[in-house]
Amino acid sequence: MPFDYDLLVLGAGPAGEKGAVQAAYFGKRVAIVECAKEPGGAAVHTGTLPSKTLRETALFLSGYRQRDLYGVEVNLHRELAVPKLLSRKDAVRDLEVARIRWNLERHGVPMLKGIARFVDPHTVEVAQCGGPPRRITSEVFLVATGSKPHQPEDIPFDDEDVDDSDTVLLIDRLPKTMTIVGGGVIGCEYATMFAALQVKVTLIEGRGRLLPFLDLEMGERLRGAMNSLGVTILLDTKTTKVARVPGVGIRSTLNTGVMLDSDKFLFAAGRSGRTGELHLESLGVKLDKRGYVQVDGDYRTAVPHIYAAGDVIGFPALASTSMEQARVAVCHAFGFTYKRQVSCVLPFGIYTIPEVSCVGLSEEACNEQELDYVVGRAFYRDNARGKIIGDKDGVIKLIFDRKTRVLVGCHCIGDRASELVHIGQAVLLGKGTVDTFIEMVFNYPTLAEAFKYAAYDALARFGATIGQPKTASPAM
Amino acid sequence: MPFDYDLLVLGAGPAGEKGAVQAAYFGKRVAIVECAKEPGGAAVHTGTLPSKTLRETALFLSGYRQRDLYGVEVNLHRELAVPKLLSRKDAVRDLEVARIRWNLERHGVPMLKGIARFVDPHTVEVAQCGGPPRRITSEVFLVATGSKPHQPEDIPFDDEDVDDSDTVLLIDRLPKTMTIVGGGVIGCEYATMFAALQVKVTLIEGRGRLLPFLDLEMGERLRGAMNSLGVTILLDTKTTKVARVPGVGIRSTLNTGVMLDSDKFLFAAGRSGRTGELHLESLGVKLDKRGYVQVDGDYRTAVPHIYAAGDVIGFPALASTSMEQARVAVCHAFGFTYKRQVSCVLPFGIYTIPEVSCVGLSEEACNEQELDYVVGRAFYRDNARGKIIGDKDGVIKLIFDRKTRVLVGCHCIGDRASELVHIGQAVLLGKGTVDTFIEMVFNYPTLAEAFKYAAYDALARFGATIGQPKTASPAM
Repeated sequence: MPFDYDLLVLGAGPAGEKGAVQAAYFGKRVAIVECAKEPGGAAVHTGTLPSKTLRETALFLSGYRQRDLYGVEVNLHRELAVPKLLSRKDAVRDLEVARIRWNLERHGVPMLKGIARFVDPHTVEVAQCGGPPRRITSEVFLVATGSKPHQPEDIPFDDEDVDDSDTVLLIDRLPKTMTIVGGGVIGCEYATMFAALQVKVTLIEGRGRLLPFLDLEMGERLRGAMNSLGVTILLDTKTTKVARVPGVGIRSTLNTGVMLDSDKFLFAAGRSGRTGELHLESLGVKLDKRGYVQVDGDYRTAVPHIYAAGDVIGFPALASTSMEQARVAVCHAFGFTYKRQVSCVLPFGIYTIPEVSCVGLSEEACNEQELDYVVGRAFYRDNARGKIIGDKDGVIKLIFDRKTRVLVGCHCIGDRASELVHIGQAVLLGKGTVDTFIEMVFNYPTLAEAFKYAAYDALARFGATIGQPKTASPAM
Repeated sequence: MPFDYDLLVLGAGPAGEKGAVQAAYFGKRVAIVECAKEPGGAAVHTGTLPSKTLRETALFLSGYRQRDLYGVEVNLHRELAVPKLLSRKDAVRDLEVARIRWNLERHGVPMLKGIARFVDPHTVEVAQCGGPPRRITSEVFLVATGSKPHQPEDIPFDDEDVDDSDTVLLIDRLPKTMTIVGGGVIGCEYATMFAALQVKVTLIEGRGRLLPFLDLEMGERLRGAMNSLGVTILLDTKTTKVARVPGVGIRSTLNTGVMLDSDKFLFAAGRSGRTGELHLESLGVKLDKRGYVQVDGDYRTAVPHIYAAGDVIGFPALASTSMEQARVAVCHAFGFTYKRQVSCVLPFGIYTIPEVSCVGLSEEACNEQELDYVVGRAFYRDNARGKIIGDKDGVIKLIFDRKTRVLVGCHCIGDRASELVHIGQAVLLGKGTVDTFIEMVFNYPTLAEAFKYAAYDALARFGATIGQPKTASPAM
């Protein structure tokens, strides 16, 4: 008996949408199962977009302070509930939901509502609210069900002032003080966002550094910038107890013995794969202890016709990468030669204030590979546009292979870092060298111009390979 | 007798600074003559940076309106004098002047104050205020004296409400209404900036389109956006008379018979080379009727050891390009092999609201070259970050060679266009194709992601070269 579909996608977040549309585009019969009312997943509904919309208000306020715009008066109504501050997010969400629905529709992909579980390797049962469960068969499956916050048992999540990363944006007012546990992407993003909204934030991280996947220097620069913004950062620190103390708020007792009281407590130390109801393990699909699906380089699970992509497979759990993983998975499943792998040049964008973004190798990665490298830096404070916006902390850092002069890494911190990094990424993909940037003419005034001056800075460290320089640094 | 210097640079704007430092870096004896108190030229003192600082306030206000940030209240004190609104520019200017002074100093380039004129092909006389003129000899000269506003005799520039592009930022308050003559870069930039500051602006242009060097579609999009911002644009229109009418303001009589009254009148139709006092023509250097120095492809004038770069040679008169012209001129003059030509991939950045920026070929240029091309577009309104910032007009337009799939042109309008265009520029330089963008992973949410979707849009128009698509448009 033929299958109902060629591809059944579980989950309509960024990975699910792009995977489904990719297969439909090439003529496959595709459907998506989604348990939420609307498509979009965490990117649209709980995480990425809503938090970036609140961040916009925070950025606007901090930008105003940075730029010192005389003649303009700005007031934040702190007494307003956060959901009101976020009213703009509903418009953004509605637009994005409409775009996804339209994209699915024009590619002929139906969205089936309900909760899916596998009953055999080619059949899922979809439980629909108020109706009988429905069985659907498919040749290939793409699991893209995302993740959910990890909730340790000793944290009192039933307290209204204790939140996880899915509920934090539902808080009803801006607190005066906030304790955040977890120095990963989510913890750092919320720490800076609330600090810019004039909340006194303490960030607690068990490891010795924030965001350990970042180039060490950039991580340290971010830490400095967060301190300047007023965030207190406690590294190598854990909570041993979290509980409400009446009249005081939420008290966090730390392993150092310190007791920390705050109006709000946010637990942002990790998420886990949303795989509990799928019955994947009974088919032979491997999960790790956090419930993340284990896949190979083609995003295939241990069961050859079941693929997984996006947050449900764990790190990096970025919408950008998730979409590509899903496209690659689908191309592999059906043998499309179109897209065989996720680009080896993957950017990371972290929406802290300031933003941090990077692509390619860090200095540590160069050292591990025993690559002889040359670094060049340019500072926003020396850049005309940086001066206009008053961004004193921004830096573009480029890393070149000393022998070939080829760009191997690009690291940005500061205003628009997540956009600017793509200039470095394009040069990386084109196998450009330090001379590529020297040759490029940049609009004036732009932050992008800093790429040229970072290259000049690196040139000096390559040694006198371009003549007989009179001065040590050619940042000209 | 040996010359005092190897290179004497006239003018310490962007071209002068970079040309001087380039030569000094390679060991040449260099000095700069500058008539103003501080280095920096129009870029720092009258034009680029000060206007971009005022623009920052305008952008902030229009950004606030676009983003509809509930909970934030913003007020512009309209009664404040513009110089007060611009107080931030003094800080920016001081920082930039300090940077230039430091750059000259560490490269051992003295700045000589005074007004220069040639007395023979290798000697200039520098007239110093309060002192005897001084004669300085040099082997090579770089003329980088910039430009000044063109002032037709029939415009009453002595009226305090009639300004040119050098004096407009000295106005003492925001007018209610403003007439601007000239639909070039300066006219369009000020028209949108003042409109965003809630001034009612009428823009008059003698030709049939604004910014004729732009891709026609992008020019039309800008015109539409300017209209939405409230700018009235009169094309194919000239003033026949401009005069004050007591109790009314400045009355512009148009060739159409219309009479237009406004509080302020800005004449921004052209500038001319600041060459009047140099006595260049007596040496054999050719000037055009606007006083611009005529140069060849190496920026050499008709006198072989005299070069010219920057605004003084006319179009495009952008700081970014001027700096590169000066570097190339100096490298050619001394035979440095380091930099032989200004990149053939030159970006244009226009700081209107919205910004417009482009690099490479327009559609018209493709047609002229009989190049078979494919266009792809992506709209900010379909982009997650575009939705967050509420930019509905933004577009990324990419043009590819149909045969080779190589990118040949990149055109951006909207928020941060002047930064984003450099992603396209980097791909152009790397000879990337439509597939380069398809392969690239972009941070989410970013405006940069629109490059990928513009490429998907183009893919559909390349025809079914990537399989057997089921749908017409693969914007997936």
